[in-house]
Amino acid sequence: MSKILDTINFNADGLIAAIAQQHDTGEVLMMAWMNAESVTETLATGQVCYYSRSRQKLWRKGETSGQQQKLVEMRLDCDGDTLLLLVDQKGVACHTGRRNCFFLAARNGEWVEIAKPEVSPEELYKR
Amino acid sequence: MSKILDTINFNADGLIAAIAQQHDTGEVLMMAWMNAESVTETLATGQVCYYSRSRQKLWRKGETSGQQQKLVEMRLDCDGDTLLLLVDQKGVACHTGRRNCFFLAARNGEWVEIAKPEVSPEELYKR
Repeated sequence: MSKILDTINFNADGLIAAIAQQHDTGEVLMMAWMNAESVTETLATGQVCYYSRSRQKLWRKGETSGQQQKLVEMRLDCDGDTLLLLVDQKGVACHTGRRNCFFLAARNGEWVEIAKPEVSPEELYKR
Repeated sequence: MSKILDTINFNADGLIAAIAQQHDTGEVLMMAWMNAESVTETLATGQVCYYSRSRQKLWRKGETSGQQQKLVEMRLDCDGDTLLLLVDQKGVACHTGRRNCFFLAARNGEWVEIAKPEVSPEELYKR
């Protein structure tokens, strides 16, 4: 495991950006952050675990909503400061109930919503 | 343009993470950073312009190497702190000469190189 962590260039806060991509369709689902502990846990369990900067603790994706991400492969970029997580997303990735978080498109000088929620946030977080 | 910039949650350094994805294949090419000026320029010109944190100036992708990214669509995520750039990549995205920057895969506790350069860095930066 040290071989994995030693190559990662964590930033001053001990974090690395992680892009989650649906492994078979190529859909970019979301971007979040990981620390050494969440990288280690993700590789050990095969379930993606981020680090929540707002809550300042491990964020086991889907723990509350059930919308887990199963890790297919973890990749690192050329300068070691970004991870690409190929995942199998269960349900929706976005807390708004949309499949992915990138539902605003810049068109004619403003952001246009290009995707609707597939499930309501209330439904997602009721449990 | 202010409608576009006002919705973006730039970080304390005035930057936002930007993921570049090949628009037709879904390949995630790289992740870099943008400031307000590079977002504005990218939308105005249709050629992707990042902000280089190391050089502390605008980084017009491909200006030296010729490997430009033509913008197809700019998208913003749910909390406004990550951009997804759908692009048409000319040549290779990575400074190592590989098509994309994510050529290391975590396998059995170590990083394994899964892609070779398509062009040498010397060739890329000779001009």
